[in-house]
Amino acid sequence: MSPCVHHIRTTFTKYIHETQNKICQSLEKLDGKSVFEEDAWQRPGGGGGKTRIIRNGNIFEKGGVNTSIVHGKLPPEMQKQFKTTHDNFFAAGISLVLHPQNPFVPTTHANFRYFELMDSDGQCVDSWFGGGIDLTPYYLDVANVKHFHTTLKAACDSVQLGLYETYKNQCDTYFYIPHRNEMRGVGGIFYDYLRPNAPLQIEQLLALAQNNADAFLKAYLPIVAQNAQKSYTSEQKKWQEIRRGRYAEFNLVYDRGTLFGLKTGGRIESILMSLPATVRWEYNFQPEPNSAEALIIKHLQPIDWVHFCEHRAI
Amino acid sequence: MSPCVHHIRTTFTKYIHETQNKICQSLEKLDGKSVFEEDAWQRPGGGGGKTRIIRNGNIFEKGGVNTSIVHGKLPPEMQKQFKTTHDNFFAAGISLVLHPQNPFVPTTHANFRYFELMDSDGQCVDSWFGGGIDLTPYYLDVANVKHFHTTLKAACDSVQLGLYETYKNQCDTYFYIPHRNEMRGVGGIFYDYLRPNAPLQIEQLLALAQNNADAFLKAYLPIVAQNAQKSYTSEQKKWQEIRRGRYAEFNLVYDRGTLFGLKTGGRIESILMSLPATVRWEYNFQPEPNSAEALIIKHLQPIDWVHFCEHRAI
Repeated sequence: MSPCVHHIRTTFTKYIHETQNKICQSLEKLDGKSVFEEDAWQRPGGGGGKTRIIRNGNIFEKGGVNTSIVHGKLPPEMQKQFKTTHDNFFAAGISLVLHPQNPFVPTTHANFRYFELMDSDGQCVDSWFGGGIDLTPYYLDVANVKHFHTTLKAACDSVQLGLYETYKNQCDTYFYIPHRNEMRGVGGIFYDYLRPNAPLQIEQLLALAQNNADAFLKAYLPIVAQNAQKSYTSEQKKWQEIRRGRYAEFNLVYDRGTLFGLKTGGRIESILMSLPATVRWEYNFQPEPNSAEALIIKHLQPIDWVHFCEHRAI
Repeated sequence: MSPCVHHIRTTFTKYIHETQNKICQSLEKLDGKSVFEEDAWQRPGGGGGKTRIIRNGNIFEKGGVNTSIVHGKLPPEMQKQFKTTHDNFFAAGISLVLHPQNPFVPTTHANFRYFELMDSDGQCVDSWFGGGIDLTPYYLDVANVKHFHTTLKAACDSVQLGLYETYKNQCDTYFYIPHRNEMRGVGGIFYDYLRPNAPLQIEQLLALAQNNADAFLKAYLPIVAQNAQKSYTSEQKKWQEIRRGRYAEFNLVYDRGTLFGLKTGGRIESILMSLPATVRWEYNFQPEPNSAEALIIKHLQPIDWVHFCEHRAI
């Protein structure tokens, strides 16, 4: 039996374009000032994408909500990564990163992608889904983080119980900065190479992507709405920029997708739209003990946020 | 014959400490406001270093002039990199990076290091020198770049003719950002794994390191002195910060020393002192055609600066 089901490509492609529109509209409405600008691009080897960027908004300092549908010959580096001799591929994905102005509003990232591998006759030989959503706050608001994780758990649970826990652990493992011994943020969910059959059939994998992508706005927008009008000092902005330095360190040193794109001729500006607008590196910056800045650092570790007690001392 | 000569360790160690003092004093004098703060650190496995940081100066926004003398068991990652089964090492080095406030003053970087590898009886089995100096301007001043390269050429020539040309080419190759198809700056010199015998004996390798390190102030300080009082606009500062983004991209994605240090438990703050204080990433920023900003980009390619004609159109 072919590992591909005919309608998945078209269904997923249609879904991510609709989702791109829906997310951009919701974010524009919330921002109230800036709108997304679109750069449509073609890939020389086949396919292309729509990069949509928002900048200098009331709420969003810099962000992107991108889709790409690419196909053609698999570059040798990707053959090596996928451990395959086949070299025909199709890939569709939506990817977003949002960097808010206000340090009390967390940065967020989400990505959902579908991949097919074909033999030289064009017959499908492999297919898989990957994806994730995660949150990077600059200050800790336990209720916000619990809401974020609980929303993602509900989205995963509706496909199969236990998935959230697995993907949450994978997220904790993936978004980790070894040289800082801290996570990039407070996690979320992350999965890759999910092939149909075990534990999920192809329709469940599609539903998983859709449930999670649909959950994104429910998980993130209330957090933005609650914090975006808070006043902040220049010192708090500076703290946000220092923490953005860690975000850049993770993306440039460790993030597989970023490095892979940079080193295999991906569209550089679409890949690096994930980097914050302004970043600061101070030598050996240490937050004051027991400060709000020290508090968030303590929580950039694997924590069971769904069951986390708000009044627990850490 | 042992590939090590007894006095080289002590001579080089003494030399880099004197050079650290001399460079810091000269930079402080020029800056006129900020002084270097020293963090002395110990390495658990053996040895330690002196990290000296200057910040918020009249001229230098952020910089470091560091020395380290470390020894002990070679980490497995380094054994792998050096393709050796021996695991006793000694390494001494001086490393500096200077990020000026004024966008008309270039950033610079220099590094000189000496390495010995010993067998389990402590007998020396290998030794080599590595080093380099390079310049990263934000605006092009051809006379400045010619002065920088000519000074380095004189330092290399006094050891052996032809060395400058080889090390200059290696610098162009090394400080290259493939995903931007541009060099990090206008180059300088770069060499590594220079073992005694061919083409240079150990005393000549030592002289090469010393000549070049001595040339650093002669190469860089006149450029600083000439440009540090120039007035600049906030747009020019912004351009500097955007270009600093490229600097961070190179250091975090490609620089062997940075990645190696981050991934093998080096002292993070000493390694990442190379990153600029403030950095900016704008989506798809393109300088105006024929602007001063576009001009420097055109010159971030391998160019024979010593023989470059100032009035040549590029």
